[in-house]
Amino acid sequence: MTHPITFLSDYGPDDGFAGVCRAVIARIAPQARVIDLSHGIARHDVRRGAIVLANALPYAPAGVHLAVVDPGVGSDRRAIAVRSADRLLVGPDNGLLSLALARLGGATEAVEVSASPVRLEPVSATFHGRDVFAPVAAHLALGAEPAELGEWIAVDSLVGIVLPESAIEPGCLRATVGDLDGFGNAALLATAEEGAAAGLAPGRALSVETPATTVDAVFALTFADVAAGGLIVYADSDGCLALAVNRGSAVERLGLSAGDRVALRPA
Amino acid sequence: MTHPITFLSDYGPDDGFAGVCRAVIARIAPQARVIDLSHGIARHDVRRGAIVLANALPYAPAGVHLAVVDPGVGSDRRAIAVRSADRLLVGPDNGLLSLALARLGGATEAVEVSASPVRLEPVSATFHGRDVFAPVAAHLALGAEPAELGEWIAVDSLVGIVLPESAIEPGCLRATVGDLDGFGNAALLATAEEGAAAGLAPGRALSVETPATTVDAVFALTFADVAAGGLIVYADSDGCLALAVNRGSAVERLGLSAGDRVALRPA
Amino acid sequence: MTHPITFLSDYGPDDGFAGVCRAVIARIAPQARVIDLSHGIARHDVRRGAIVLANALPYAPAGVHLAVVDPGVGSDRRAIAVRSADRLLVGPDNGLLSLALARLGGATEAVEVSASPVRLEPVSATFHGRDVFAPVAAHLALGAEPAELGEWIAVDSLVGIVLPESAIEPGCLRATVGDLDGFGNAALLATAEEGAAAGLAPGRALSVETPATTVDAVFALTFADVAAGGLIVYADSDGCLALAVNRGSAVERLGLSAGDRVALRPA
Repeated sequence: MTHPITFLSDYGPDDGFAGVCRAVIARIAPQARVIDLSHGIARHDVRRGAIVLANALPYAPAGVHLAVVDPGVGSDRRAIAVRSADRLLVGPDNGLLSLALARLGGATEAVEVSASPVRLEPVSATFHGRDVFAPVAAHLALGAEPAELGEWIAVDSLVGIVLPESAIEPGCLRATVGDLDGFGNAALLATAEEGAAAGLAPGRALSVETPATTVDAVFALTFADVAAGGLIVYADSDGCLALAVNRGSAVERLGLSAGDRVALRPA
Repeated sequence: MTHPITFLSDYGPDDGFAGVCRAVIARIAPQARVIDLSHGIARHDVRRGAIVLANALPYAPAGVHLAVVDPGVGSDRRAIAVRSADRLLVGPDNGLLSLALARLGGATEAVEVSASPVRLEPVSATFHGRDVFAPVAAHLALGAEPAELGEWIAVDSLVGIVLPESAIEPGCLRATVGDLDGFGNAALLATAEEGAAAGLAPGRALSVETPATTVDAVFALTFADVAAGGLIVYADSDGCLALAVNRGSAVERLGLSAGDRVALRPA
Repeated sequence: MTHPITFLSDYGPDDGFAGVCRAVIARIAPQARVIDLSHGIARHDVRRGAIVLANALPYAPAGVHLAVVDPGVGSDRRAIAVRSADRLLVGPDNGLLSLALARLGGATEAVEVSASPVRLEPVSATFHGRDVFAPVAAHLALGAEPAELGEWIAVDSLVGIVLPESAIEPGCLRATVGDLDGFGNAALLATAEEGAAAGLAPGRALSVETPATTVDAVFALTFADVAAGGLIVYADSDGCLALAVNRGSAVERLGLSAGDRVALRPA
């Protein structure tokens, strides 16, 4: 049986990069199902790639998970394949895989695959998705063991990402904007539980302070709980606190960027 | 045998939404072929989603048809699975499926699936594509009957979309712009037959009056019938009258928006 | 056994065009694997489509290769299926397939398929991807012979693309910008070998003269060989000389467009 392969990258929709990787996979593992998670991660935005991957993998079938957001391609950053439970993650060792690995329960083994025997020769200096990562993912899908494809490295040597933490103060939750989606919703790096601890409850009014402005909002379950144009704070589908405007864009309304620090104050 | 699943949404290329739905489907129905129709429907544009879906389904294999453009997610709008002949359509009950159902010959049975036994718990308030629609579609692909996945509802209670009609007057066809494509072509909500009834014939000159301007055009079979930059009215590949500029954009030339009313007057 | 089908077009992400073609293929050849190479080729940019296709096909499994960038749809341009070794290419006869055919060793047989017995009737005047090319590709994937699907034409009658050549002068390589990618890298229509012949060597400084400016650069192996913001000339993953800015955009920095002529002068 061939394992399925999920695939996430910052290759974008306009070039052939993601397509060539799919072609490489199909050539090596003709039966492998490729599940595109997203190729629209902002260029080189390792953190966003890590967040989207971590949120997606719990919903994906066990198998191989290929992810490439790789601004350091061709440098001495490592190329890795990592096992976590019944999953094998493949990508650059720059933190991209780290949030997903943490959510899956941690890495149990890891290999460095830059010089993998299955790499495509000559390996280009700038497109390891095609020449290293896709072939490694395809061979793992066929059932190869990581140790056949690279050299053991210590799992505690893998590069991680540290996300800014939220802070609960009396009458205030401070958190960092982590992820902006295409609908204009802004997810905070804070959980619904942290919101509850800070006093947020369905129907309760609050103020939202951003670097640009301070506005009133209501804590709601879903967009439709307020009129069109209304601003809500809610627990999003990944369990994070988030800001949204019903049928509008919280990102535009509040001028938000990833990394902004915001304060939520229940009224 | 597992049925194929077509998939259309407004989830866009930059986030993981469509990818997570594909992952959910692959987990439940590993053999189901997923055929992405488009994920670039303008955000919350139910009418455009309905038009694109209705134009695509006659070309798709019989099976399951998942569509999600869902501005009312989390409200009391219903979530539905609907049978029409040998097809099963899944999505929100907001009119998105209605034009396709009409073209396929009408709905013969329908169930409400918001509380489907196959939904993913806990169901989020804002991402029913992942938690409700994708699991329902996947189980239908595996051969489940609609009645196993939801509660019967009356097919005549389904929400429809009413498209503005065209009007044939002496020497004039009035119609509404229904769909703008990425090439800059503008489809009208009028059929080629209505154009013929109003006197449009291949090679015949006409004037096109839009809210912004009045210009001369020619009724042609295809773009290449006029020089580069020439404006044509033609019967498009979906059987609608449409406006195009050969190797250019009619949308830009005429400043068109969906919903604009235009008048075509044979010379 | 059903052959896989790669698929490239300029249909873009926002409309249903590529999706409908996938639906047509799935209906005719339910077992055919479709490998999307890219649908983000700039509208009507036959040359870019030809370059991306030629760079991708050596990595793809043998099979059927569908490509549609077709500004002359509906005109008297021919619709073709062409064999080259163990591959069958399908698309308009406007040069789109020509660079790939040359790289694969040349065409050995070709048929004109505009009136193919497998076309979808009525054939629209403006969407031959759906009505002609996709059905032909699907039937080839099922094992049909080209001669069953069209009329023989001479392979030496196929339309080609002539790319501007580079020129090596004493102390100077002149070449044309061929391809701009989404990361802001600009590939030149010149090979790494031509660069070596002109004196480019790893670590060597050079000046880059564009229509807009003259700047200093270094010839490097990869982006990370210079500091963030540094400009490099390098051999890209397709074997072409290219311009890049580490963690930035050479296209923006140098104001480059496809077709610009640049001069590289080793220091």
